[in-house]
Amino acid sequence: MGRLITTKYLLIISYDGSNFHGSQLQNDLRTIQGDLETVIEKVFGVFSRVSLSSRTDSGVHAEFQVGTFDVEKNKLDSFSVRSALNSYLEEDIRIMDVGVLTSDAIFFDPRKDAISREYVYIFNDSQVLHPRFRDYVYHVKGKLNEHIMNKGASLLLGKHDFIAFAGHSTSIKDYTVREVFQSTVTRTEHFVHFSITSNGFLHQQIRRISGLLLQIGLGKKSPDIIKHYLDSKVRGEFTNVLSPKGLCLKNIKYKDNFLQKFLTN
Amino acid sequence: MGRLITTKYLLIISYDGSNFHGSQLQNDLRTIQGDLETVIEKVFGVFSRVSLSSRTDSGVHAEFQVGTFDVEKNKLDSFSVRSALNSYLEEDIRIMDVGVLTSDAIFFDPRKDAISREYVYIFNDSQVLHPRFRDYVYHVKGKLNEHIMNKGASLLLGKHDFIAFAGHSTSIKDYTVREVFQSTVTRTEHFVHFSITSNGFLHQQIRRISGLLLQIGLGKKSPDIIKHYLDSKVRGEFTNVLSPKGLCLKNIKYKDNFLQKFLTN
Repeated sequence: MGRLITTKYLLIISYDGSNFHGSQLQNDLRTIQGDLETVIEKVFGVFSRVSLSSRTDSGVHAEFQVGTFDVEKNKLDSFSVRSALNSYLEEDIRIMDVGVLTSDAIFFDPRKDAISREYVYIFNDSQVLHPRFRDYVYHVKGKLNEHIMNKGASLLLGKHDFIAFAGHSTSIKDYTVREVFQSTVTRTEHFVHFSITSNGFLHQQIRRISGLLLQIGLGKKSPDIIKHYLDSKVRGEFTNVLSPKGLCLKNIKYKDNFLQKFLTN
Repeated sequence: MGRLITTKYLLIISYDGSNFHGSQLQNDLRTIQGDLETVIEKVFGVFSRVSLSSRTDSGVHAEFQVGTFDVEKNKLDSFSVRSALNSYLEEDIRIMDVGVLTSDAIFFDPRKDAISREYVYIFNDSQVLHPRFRDYVYHVKGKLNEHIMNKGASLLLGKHDFIAFAGHSTSIKDYTVREVFQSTVTRTEHFVHFSITSNGFLHQQIRRISGLLLQIGLGKKSPDIIKHYLDSKVRGEFTNVLSPKGLCLKNIKYKDNFLQKFLTN
């Protein structure tokens, strides 16, 4: 009959973003999407476009990124696909889990169907930063007050226009209102974690908010300054974009625990 | 009077060994000693030889390495020396603490005066290794039985001839008896830690013993095989040298808590 039947695979991906030029495909530069498409072609013998849920910049890490790709009807099970892809991928990117989407889930879109994303920005205020953490935290000179930072972070909860934290790449016609479901600052020894969950983020939004929380934590600004920027409506008013290496994509959620139906772990 | 008065500084050093050709000076290769001597010359304006307590190979890490160097009588305090050295050093090596040795401790030798060294070799037996740990653990295919490994490790306690675990670099006239004070295997989630403390180690000894513990943990050998190699007296009989990236120098002890007298942290 000539009908093309495809298999849609779901990927849970972790990476150390240090040596990538971000997640999104760029000519001649190493990217998450590029590496994935290259190894998928090696394993399946055909090119397949990879869709990723969240865009991460150069140097930003992911514990839990979601991707999909389609290939012609294929008999490889989840476990074999994971092993095969990991055997070709470099060690700084790993497929943690693979699912095979059934025919009723064939239109699943990892980006559009996500209902929330959780990111963490990690500060470290030890006197000397242990070498092991150098690519994963923002090392602060001075001591952070995490309680006052948490007070600032809590003001982000709810629906706000984040245009004051937008970068150049946010276009004038882009919708800049987002809803924040969770926003907290906690400390574990010398690590201060800013965790935020929202229905979406503008480009550089978290790194800019982290820059403001840093000033708050060092006592240079009052936590109420957050309100000022949420009310300001001045595009890109807050200009201090912190290093990408403190930022990590931690989780992505879909309606009705969609992922869990297809994953083995 | 022309009398040369020197100041002896004590360094506590941490490093990620991944991008170093070991601790010991080598022509045209990046080493711990080489980097330290370069930055000391930048800070003090004169060359000074650095003595390190323990020799670590390419790829081996250190949480706690001890070093010393002498410069002409100098007024820089410990804190300033640490800041100055760290500002020049690359981020994969850090001076965690600095002490100034008083005149009665001027003959302190970080290598000869050490009474024990603790190393840890870390295995990880998760199905997929998270990218963040790729340079710090040995990823095992299969599940390790840490209890049976611990049984094997306990047989190392006491005074033994470790010649069967010696590498090519151990010369025929070298004394190969060492005393092991502590030797345990413990698990935390997917991480299995082999921790060993001894008055000294032969070159490659721990990586070879770790290779044997791996076979024991996978059920390929009985823990009693340890006894066989301790009794064998066959030079380098055990040839499986595991990857350096699982190995880390954790601690070094001196008589009468010597270091604590001079350190600020």
